[in-house]
Amino acid sequence: MRNKRVLLASRPSGWVSEADFRLEEAPLPQPAQGEVLVRNLWLSLDPYMRGRMSDAKSYVKAVELGEVMVGQTAGEVLESRHPTLKAGDKVLTQLGWQLYGTTKEAMRVEERRAPLSCYLGVLGMPGMTAYFGLKEIGQPKAGETVVVTAASGAVGSVVGQLAKIWGARAVGIAGGGEKCAYVKDELGFDACIDYKAGNLAAALREACPKGVEVYFDNVGGEILDTVLARMNLFGRVVVCGTISDYNSSDPYRVRNWRAILVNRLRVQGMIVFDWKERYREALDALAGYFGQGRLKYRESVVEGLENAPRGLIALLKGENFGKQLVKLS
Amino acid sequence: MRNKRVLLASRPSGWVSEADFRLEEAPLPQPAQGEVLVRNLWLSLDPYMRGRMSDAKSYVKAVELGEVMVGQTAGEVLESRHPTLKAGDKVLTQLGWQLYGTTKEAMRVEERRAPLSCYLGVLGMPGMTAYFGLKEIGQPKAGETVVVTAASGAVGSVVGQLAKIWGARAVGIAGGGEKCAYVKDELGFDACIDYKAGNLAAALREACPKGVEVYFDNVGGEILDTVLARMNLFGRVVVCGTISDYNSSDPYRVRNWRAILVNRLRVQGMIVFDWKERYREALDALAGYFGQGRLKYRESVVEGLENAPRGLIALLKGENFGKQLVKLS
Repeated sequence: MRNKRVLLASRPSGWVSEADFRLEEAPLPQPAQGEVLVRNLWLSLDPYMRGRMSDAKSYVKAVELGEVMVGQTAGEVLESRHPTLKAGDKVLTQLGWQLYGTTKEAMRVEERRAPLSCYLGVLGMPGMTAYFGLKEIGQPKAGETVVVTAASGAVGSVVGQLAKIWGARAVGIAGGGEKCAYVKDELGFDACIDYKAGNLAAALREACPKGVEVYFDNVGGEILDTVLARMNLFGRVVVCGTISDYNSSDPYRVRNWRAILVNRLRVQGMIVFDWKERYREALDALAGYFGQGRLKYRESVVEGLENAPRGLIALLKGENFGKQLVKLS
Repeated sequence: MRNKRVLLASRPSGWVSEADFRLEEAPLPQPAQGEVLVRNLWLSLDPYMRGRMSDAKSYVKAVELGEVMVGQTAGEVLESRHPTLKAGDKVLTQLGWQLYGTTKEAMRVEERRAPLSCYLGVLGMPGMTAYFGLKEIGQPKAGETVVVTAASGAVGSVVGQLAKIWGARAVGIAGGGEKCAYVKDELGFDACIDYKAGNLAAALREACPKGVEVYFDNVGGEILDTVLARMNLFGRVVVCGTISDYNSSDPYRVRNWRAILVNRLRVQGMIVFDWKERYREALDALAGYFGQGRLKYRESVVEGLENAPRGLIALLKGENFGKQLVKLS
């Protein structure tokens, strides 16, 4: 058996291209004392990966040229020198874009609770991002209006469903009629606005006649400015992503900063790693709702490690529909 | 005796001019049951007044054309039909740009604690803005670095002095060498940067070698963007004013929004009226520090109601030095 892995070959300026990656073979790694050897079955693709490809200052360091691309993975233990894990265990790991890897840091997950891939989505980092961002920063009260962008995506879909579970109104923003129909009809949001249909401001007024208390923002850009203008007194803005900027060398410049003063908004950045000590709480809560059938999800799957670059590019262009995954086996 | 008052004559577009105001005489008002007749001795001039002259949406409604300009005033009760105030009492009121007025809402203040004009500055709205904004939103811990703009002004000067009292480092930003010398040498800030001297980013790096935990922003604009780029992880930004925008029809567009995400900043709008229930706490704390000689202040006084428009224009241009007041008697 040989390992296969995808390395960062060059730093993109603007849009990512497949030429920014290189697929290579490598020997199968051997687990050291305390480690497991894992066969990765699923690789999660996420917008933050665009940031790691760049050497601009961000919340974690960039991937070096020639390094394996980072990413969360779910797989099966093949061989264990780890004190509590054994061969056959299903685990969550951060092994990145490769078929096999060794690590000390693997978290056992239970497939009877949910399919393995769910631990990368609705019960994984995206679900926990939604959980902590909405609960601790957004703090919606019953009857308040929560607006979330990328509403059909891995984070946004959970944000809106949690808002509903917690008694708030959920209004999504997504790209295209098909995604909007899914968000409204299948996920149960109160409304979903197609930002590609034009006149977002008018659509937002109609969907949020009493204004917006919580804005969970995954995209930044013009949409952010439009929602800022619709926020109510003492509203909260969860700054979770600026995907609209990821492929532009010049960041979007925000026009409505003064709305923060005028409406005494609280605007706060959200990265899920800051909540590490409470992952268990989030997992239990999310798995509970999931078990009750109250958290629906959708996956967008590309097959094979060699297609991971294509999958990431599609994700960054908003062409995915639901949680973007690579099936490795 | 006749009253004199200054009315809003036209809405400025861009810079305020004296032609936007009109001085008129009026009969002396008579106090109704429950009211006092007050002779105003001091009128406070504040940056927020620019906002009230505009009909753009803001946190309170605009002054109508032909109405008396709003403003906080300190004066003496001439005649009382109020249950607890009597002639001769010194009071704080919101009577606006006029020599006399009647009101039910007057707060008695004690001149033995501090000169009357201080209740419009270091012990008044500006002082309380600094107190609540820094304590409750900025939340500086000992050893952290607090940066404040308009540092020689009524709010900024108190922000920096409170930061020092509470054990933090205080770095001011002000316009011109004279103001900076005052902030550093007389107010006791650790450093003060002259933004007019050019290369603010480099000066900020030097004054804040370990970055910035708390930014108390009175100005917005390019300075805001420069400080945002220097904020540390989990930093706090108090959005208290955007004076740099007040005279421009097109708001400044903020480039470094992404810093909120990258460093998980908490950015929050601050208006002192939201803290009404705790004014007494703030006044007691500020008066305590004041009595110990730990809160220094400076006043910039224009004489006579007819010169109030000129005083406001000077303030908006940053030509004042310390708390801007109009002496009415």
